[in-house]
Amino acid sequence: MQKPYLIGIDFGTLSGRCILVDARDGRELAESVSEYAHGVMDERLPCGKPLPAQYALQHPQDYLDVLSSTIPDVLQKAGASPEEVAGIGFDFTACTWMPVDADGTPLCFHERFAAEPHAYVKLWKHHAAQPQADRINRLAAERGEDWLPVYGSKISSEWALPKILEILEEAPAVFEATDRFTEAADWLSRVLTGNETHSAPFAGYKALWRAGIGYPGDDFFTALHPGLHGLVGTRLSERVCGMDQTAGILNRTGATLTGLPEGTPLALPQIDGHAAMPALGIVGEGELMMIMGTSSCHIINNRSERLVPGICGYVRDGVIPGYATYEAGQSGVGDIFDWCVTHQVPGRDTEEAARRGISIHKLLRERAMSLRPGQSGLLALDWLNGNRNVLMNADLSGMLLGLTLNTRPEEIYRAWIEATAYGTRIILENFEQNGVPIHSIVAGGGIAQKDEMTMQIYADVTGRELRVAGAVQAAALGSAMYAAVAAGVFPNLQEAAQRLSRPSPRTYRPIPAHHTVYNRLYQEYKQLHDYFGRGGNNVMLTLRELSRTNG
Amino acid sequence: MQKPYLIGIDFGTLSGRCILVDARDGRELAESVSEYAHGVMDERLPCGKPLPAQYALQHPQDYLDVLSSTIPDVLQKAGASPEEVAGIGFDFTACTWMPVDADGTPLCFHERFAAEPHAYVKLWKHHAAQPQADRINRLAAERGEDWLPVYGSKISSEWALPKILEILEEAPAVFEATDRFTEAADWLSRVLTGNETHSAPFAGYKALWRAGIGYPGDDFFTALHPGLHGLVGTRLSERVCGMDQTAGILNRTGATLTGLPEGTPLALPQIDGHAAMPALGIVGEGELMMIMGTSSCHIINNRSERLVPGICGYVRDGVIPGYATYEAGQSGVGDIFDWCVTHQVPGRDTEEAARRGISIHKLLRERAMSLRPGQSGLLALDWLNGNRNVLMNADLSGMLLGLTLNTRPEEIYRAWIEATAYGTRIILENFEQNGVPIHSIVAGGGIAQKDEMTMQIYADVTGRELRVAGAVQAAALGSAMYAAVAAGVFPNLQEAAQRLSRPSPRTYRPIPAHHTVYNRLYQEYKQLHDYFGRGGNNVMLTLRELSRTNG
Repeated sequence: MQKPYLIGIDFGTLSGRCILVDARDGRELAESVSEYAHGVMDERLPCGKPLPAQYALQHPQDYLDVLSSTIPDVLQKAGASPEEVAGIGFDFTACTWMPVDADGTPLCFHERFAAEPHAYVKLWKHHAAQPQADRINRLAAERGEDWLPVYGSKISSEWALPKILEILEEAPAVFEATDRFTEAADWLSRVLTGNETHSAPFAGYKALWRAGIGYPGDDFFTALHPGLHGLVGTRLSERVCGMDQTAGILNRTGATLTGLPEGTPLALPQIDGHAAMPALGIVGEGELMMIMGTSSCHIINNRSERLVPGICGYVRDGVIPGYATYEAGQSGVGDIFDWCVTHQVPGRDTEEAARRGISIHKLLRERAMSLRPGQSGLLALDWLNGNRNVLMNADLSGMLLGLTLNTRPEEIYRAWIEATAYGTRIILENFEQNGVPIHSIVAGGGIAQKDEMTMQIYADVTGRELRVAGAVQAAALGSAMYAAVAAGVFPNLQEAAQRLSRPSPRTYRPIPAHHTVYNRLYQEYKQLHDYFGRGGNNVMLTLRELSRTNG
Repeated sequence: MQKPYLIGIDFGTLSGRCILVDARDGRELAESVSEYAHGVMDERLPCGKPLPAQYALQHPQDYLDVLSSTIPDVLQKAGASPEEVAGIGFDFTACTWMPVDADGTPLCFHERFAAEPHAYVKLWKHHAAQPQADRINRLAAERGEDWLPVYGSKISSEWALPKILEILEEAPAVFEATDRFTEAADWLSRVLTGNETHSAPFAGYKALWRAGIGYPGDDFFTALHPGLHGLVGTRLSERVCGMDQTAGILNRTGATLTGLPEGTPLALPQIDGHAAMPALGIVGEGELMMIMGTSSCHIINNRSERLVPGICGYVRDGVIPGYATYEAGQSGVGDIFDWCVTHQVPGRDTEEAARRGISIHKLLRERAMSLRPGQSGLLALDWLNGNRNVLMNADLSGMLLGLTLNTRPEEIYRAWIEATAYGTRIILENFEQNGVPIHSIVAGGGIAQKDEMTMQIYADVTGRELRVAGAVQAAALGSAMYAAVAAGVFPNLQEAAQRLSRPSPRTYRPIPAHHTVYNRLYQEYKQLHDYFGRGGNNVMLTLRELSRTNG
């Protein structure tokens, strides 16, 4: 008899979330979340050593702890036994890189590197390698590298190569001791199976790898820095595996970590955002999936391969066979709202929220909901985490304009939400203006599920209907679908998606009067977007430079 | 024998502060503060009626309460008797206007106007009359009115005429019932003495009155609005009195209110900022007095009369006989810092401050002090209360740029301080570029006295030495000096200043390395100042307009 359960795990920025799924109908039977004990290390290392600005590190032990705590937990909650699990799949934040030794042990596990920031996991939002990214972009443009236009003519400081170059230049001893630079996702596959693989979507979207072509040539790497000569095939693995392959089966270590039997099939890891796509039943052209969380990503399939300026790239067969999958992204969304409530909301509001037993977000939304579009007089640029769409520059920064002595915290909170909605509209228009039409939008992620005010604002700002994804944990469910294919429960992802995905139960429609005001505000946003983002006034870059010099 | 005491009262934005001064040497013998019970009404009237945006009203009863509480209090504290008081003087916020009936009773004291916002005192920072100010400026420019250049070619929405026009247009019943529109300061003189006077500095700086010329012609008023025909001489008093005159002596009402004997001499009220000038011993040319408080003003004497673009105006003999006194101002300074700590600082910081028994300002300064210039990467425009210098537009608003997810509250706090320092530098450069040289600067007001970090930042940003005023309550002491002249203790203000003023005990000098970085940042500030303030991008005005439409 077929084993009745699938496990899907979503490794996010702050925690890992595991679900147990019924392999027949996609129902979530149990869920378990494990917060990373070290969280995001942006101020100091575990030993107390302070970190420079723009750092965002993680500790690999936290990922292992997710496996060993959440898998037994979901089984226990559902009354299921480890032997009933057909397969596991997981997704991960993308471009979360780390250096490991020849045994696959993270360098930060070595005593001698415990106080060395560059030996740790560099989370996707580690932005200290912007100077390296700038040089890579300059050199690639000068040399006319043919891969550059594929990524919108600018690569992001979040990607693999700037992070590797940063290590070579700033911690040569770490570079020297590195056997492989690896995505954290691929490292986890290796720990669980003993096989080294490099999952194609990660390689394709974040590490300049292209199917049938491979990485940029060694002459480019060598021109960038002589120490990078021979990087591909040594410290950077060429063993890239498409999503039609699997990661393998759990070995003894994997079985011990997870409590599952040796031999349990493991799917190749998928990028967290992309994993949600099959979970939402998106298998065709022109349906855009927008995952709204800490950051947001916008993913769409198109039969043709187009060069869209400033998108993060596309990968043929990256999610669904037969399609090129394009990805754009906003580097700060929920992150900005969290920053706002952590640092910009007075004690009286946090106390009121606590007294009423609601979250501070909910309290501010209650108040902000009664504001009309345009009423606060505020306008913001949502670049607190840089811009990785269209402008592709991590050194851009946030701006808030229209402040008066009467401005209240809930108005500012709403202005940040509106700013991210304008940022989304920039992305949608950019796709369509460059030959990637959008017929419909499905929104997933925590914000789409929980935050009605934000969803309505997004509908009002973009003037588009937004269907909300049915699956609450879309990424984890998508990972379970990949697991189902890896385990042979379904012959391919299309069929798994058809059987296990959930219909969209809710739709937000634009309110015409609001859309009219937001059209006006969006014009103002665009003007500031171009002024500060396209060289009209480089003050943001100047300030970042001054901050580096005087930091 | 000469009576040994003087009383000086400083009516500020939130409270009245009274000091008892030794008439022989200027020593402060006692002090008493009375907070206004109604404070600044910017959200609702006492009856609960909500107020529109940009309103800032006050209740005249609060001013009377200052008189009846603080004067007996200082006398009691010093063990002095009412009969020993030689004279009283007071200063007041300027352009704080109100409508009164034929008896001099404020209209808001009438039952039928208790729920009518336009019947209350319009505080200087009431900004709802910006549309009226815009029309006045347009009309005056079209007609080539000769008085317009005297005020930097733009009058502020804070001034008398926009506020009067606002009442005529929005509350005709109030206009109809008004016998006089009057400065709150002049109303208080009338209550105390029974005489109606209009103090020249108020009339000259805020009501378009010029010595030897008077107000603009009736044809201008009539062209502005037919209902203003005949305004001067009826609802607007022509009885303007120079500072060489006095307000009179306390009548029975005045004596009852203050507890002082009938017949006690009362000086003409002076504008709060200007009253400080003699108190700091400033009687010559080129010494700039900078009073740093809720807002700041910059006052300087010059023998010549010059047209300085964008200054608030100059009045010959407005403070010291023989000089034209120029005034520029920043409409938000301490106000902005207060807004920041009230709305932008999280509970954990206010709790820490409370636990340590220090003010939240002090806590943030402690942390901000360790930041180097340029380190935070932030840059702000200090226009949260509009701009009433150079740009002269209350519809401009605040801007904060350079925000990242790592930005902390103390960095933002410091950015607002730096922004006000850049704003000050704009003012200083504007004076010098237009023929009003500045040889030295004396700083007074609460910030100059208490806030070492801010003073050092101002020195570093402006590159100038800042002497701190010796008198803690400079405005109140200056008022006591005017009282001394009114009472005949001294023959003129110069002599009073010589005998009663205090030397500057402290000086802040620019740190060259800081000044270098701030020069760079100031260039960026200036570029944004001109872009947003001089028509490069009118987004602030557009947002304000949208806010009015959708409010």
